[in-house]
Amino acid sequence: MKHLISIDDLDQEEIEGLLDRAESFAEVSKRDIKKVPALRGRTVVTLFYEASTRTSSSFELAAKRLSADVVSVKASGSSVEKGESLKDTVETLSAYDPAAIVIRHPQAGAADMLTNWVDAAVVNAGDGMRQHPSQALLDLLALRQRIGSVEGRKIWIVGDVLHSRVARSNIQAFSKMGAEVTVAGPPTLIPRRIEESGCEVRYSLDEIEEADVVYSLRMQRERMKESFVPSIREYARLFQINSRRLTPRQLVMHPGPVNRGVEIGGDVIDSDRCLIADQVASGLAMRMAILFELLAHGDHRESAEAPVPIGEPA
Amino acid sequence: MKHLISIDDLDQEEIEGLLDRAESFAEVSKRDIKKVPALRGRTVVTLFYEASTRTSSSFELAAKRLSADVVSVKASGSSVEKGESLKDTVETLSAYDPAAIVIRHPQAGAADMLTNWVDAAVVNAGDGMRQHPSQALLDLLALRQRIGSVEGRKIWIVGDVLHSRVARSNIQAFSKMGAEVTVAGPPTLIPRRIEESGCEVRYSLDEIEEADVVYSLRMQRERMKESFVPSIREYARLFQINSRRLTPRQLVMHPGPVNRGVEIGGDVIDSDRCLIADQVASGLAMRMAILFELLAHGDHRESAEAPVPIGEPA
Amino acid sequence: MKHLISIDDLDQEEIEGLLDRAESFAEVSKRDIKKVPALRGRTVVTLFYEASTRTSSSFELAAKRLSADVVSVKASGSSVEKGESLKDTVETLSAYDPAAIVIRHPQAGAADMLTNWVDAAVVNAGDGMRQHPSQALLDLLALRQRIGSVEGRKIWIVGDVLHSRVARSNIQAFSKMGAEVTVAGPPTLIPRRIEESGCEVRYSLDEIEEADVVYSLRMQRERMKESFVPSIREYARLFQINSRRLTPRQLVMHPGPVNRGVEIGGDVIDSDRCLIADQVASGLAMRMAILFELLAHGDHRESAEAPVPIGEPA
Repeated sequence: MKHLISIDDLDQEEIEGLLDRAESFAEVSKRDIKKVPALRGRTVVTLFYEASTRTSSSFELAAKRLSADVVSVKASGSSVEKGESLKDTVETLSAYDPAAIVIRHPQAGAADMLTNWVDAAVVNAGDGMRQHPSQALLDLLALRQRIGSVEGRKIWIVGDVLHSRVARSNIQAFSKMGAEVTVAGPPTLIPRRIEESGCEVRYSLDEIEEADVVYSLRMQRERMKESFVPSIREYARLFQINSRRLTPRQLVMHPGPVNRGVEIGGDVIDSDRCLIADQVASGLAMRMAILFELLAHGDHRESAEAPVPIGEPA
Repeated sequence: MKHLISIDDLDQEEIEGLLDRAESFAEVSKRDIKKVPALRGRTVVTLFYEASTRTSSSFELAAKRLSADVVSVKASGSSVEKGESLKDTVETLSAYDPAAIVIRHPQAGAADMLTNWVDAAVVNAGDGMRQHPSQALLDLLALRQRIGSVEGRKIWIVGDVLHSRVARSNIQAFSKMGAEVTVAGPPTLIPRRIEESGCEVRYSLDEIEEADVVYSLRMQRERMKESFVPSIREYARLFQINSRRLTPRQLVMHPGPVNRGVEIGGDVIDSDRCLIADQVASGLAMRMAILFELLAHGDHRESAEAPVPIGEPA
Repeated sequence: MKHLISIDDLDQEEIEGLLDRAESFAEVSKRDIKKVPALRGRTVVTLFYEASTRTSSSFELAAKRLSADVVSVKASGSSVEKGESLKDTVETLSAYDPAAIVIRHPQAGAADMLTNWVDAAVVNAGDGMRQHPSQALLDLLALRQRIGSVEGRKIWIVGDVLHSRVARSNIQAFSKMGAEVTVAGPPTLIPRRIEESGCEVRYSLDEIEEADVVYSLRMQRERMKESFVPSIREYARLFQINSRRLTPRQLVMHPGPVNRGVEIGGDVIDSDRCLIADQVASGLAMRMAILFELLAHGDHRESAEAPVPIGEPA
């Protein structure tokens, strides 16, 4: 594993390996000293061409908890504004000899291109509407910690599948790990031929009681203006995930940030069945695992244990 | 002391304790190695919904000098722009299991709400026009280091008291420590019934020679447009703190950033009587003390000494 | 050497000393642990009033690799927006007792002014159209690592010399180290009497084959609107540095960020003769050297070796 670009790049065993490693880092994050020296003296660059709180801060903190030095470049306020091409920006940053570059970019395939230009490990933190593999992996971790393996589980992914890189990554990841995946949403928001990726398709939530897990996607308000749906109100009436629609045993996930009361009801968000906080915590552990596997590979491969934490409390 | 939300939460003894602790950290900041290992491996999140240089950088550096890892989230360029609610943002960040969340928010009571949602210690770095307790505490420290206790001292707080969270916190803090507080400004900028909080009220600077300390508040230029005062020029003529108005023994403070030549004259800013630089330096020490008391509490309580600095110069 | 404001401040021997030191840090940057403890526990403030990726991230990472704590203040999103004067902002930041303040400011002379206000070492990271000394030094380092000394070499600086602080610094630095410097560009973009600074002037690239090194300057698109040149297309036709214009032995440099296909052809950027990546890597090493010489001076002067790296890989 040299880069992490797409769930396609990973087989089931590699995913299990990442989940094991991430579980050991989840333990580290529960300690007082939430830090290991694995990447001390190495540099991780995060390069975000789209606004982000949770993904960027999650990768940054993951790198810091591995003791790396972090350089964060955001499109806003940087020379990206001066019209520099992605290639030139990346070659500039790679002159720092970073161990990894974590990139989010509005263009599908941006992370792939990077792998041709740099020696660093490249981590795709979202490229256009295509892939967001660390999200899918952290979702698997959150589920593993709540219900164990997803094998044989029915997972419904609901909402704007068309514009969602999360949906694309998660359909692959859930299927690869043996879940039965269904996507549901208004026909305007379900991509044509999506069933070829191994999922079923529904255009209503009528049969949602069959799902073990309901994965609600973010509804981007700007889509409303583009007439993908008649109105937010109408969308919510038909596809909002809320308590009235669910049976007690069903779990709910969402990649965040949520629109309370649009794609998901506040009652669900605030209930125990909702895994959003688990997902974020899993995100930190999984991103530590990803960076660790890509960068500390040879050093620690022999053991699935997290390395011992540094120092002692003062 | 689990959180720091308001000066109301602190009694005189707790304030003295913070001042003692902060003085020991002021010593650390004079050393070559300005760092202690107290919070090594722990995470401090700063979450700023309003622009800030001095408060955010002061808390960030305080956390770094305590060896914590810092995650800084600013409203601009973050998913806050995507309309996520405060609650959801905070729950997201608390999935990182931070030791403390430092929040600035335009809405009064925002920091209080956080304490219901998270396990972390919450530090209010300014909520609307209500409270800014670390400012009041650092002001007490700056005064203690210059003139000792404020007990029995006369302190005038001058300017836009109406919109000032600094004024609200400082009236409380100064009174609690035994100072006699007067507020002065144009009637449009003095809140009704402010005297009930234990201060006197003046609508001119005619008797300002009685003050030992004059605390000038920032005049927000946008208030001018709202007709709180006829013009900047007129405001400055009546309420500017400058050398002509002061006797030599009087000290001057300001929370920054200053409008030179508006609420305060450049001659005063550049004179020894002005404590602005003392306030900023005290801010760093006080914020180290606040984070230390909230987070390293049990570990170090026995001693009011700062822990020994880490490492040795190379 | 107390500050680094202008190439004028340095004699040939001091420049050689910085180049030697930077070469030792270039070695550190090739190690697994790219870090030395020289500035542990000390604080470096970067204060950028203009957008920048490469200069700001380069100084920040340089400081981190020297183990300093870094406080980064950008004009956007800070109280600079509230209209605070440079003096007051700087005095605020200097209350943190930083070891160094690295400043970029649109006004020529801003860094000089700082030296009157603060105890910290001041590093000029670009002031208006005047100086950008770390750029000139890193360019010398990149050249030294490729071709050794620049003594007796012919260096052409091509493009918008008029608005370029890089040109001003580099003419001085290259001349001081014994190179023969020529500036070339359209008459509207060559400052009057520039030849008094010791360079020759050409208004075309007709004789560019005499150059050993061609240093292409960034063409700022906003200049086009101001009629300094008839059009980007026309400028590129006359002054673009591309393969057709160059002989195989000629090297090409550019301070970045580049406008591909405007001042420099993509064919050149992607060729071995282009030193852009070398320049960026040299920038990191040179900025480590600058901070080290200014701040760790007495401690390590005896040896031109870089201090030993900290720790061991986990």
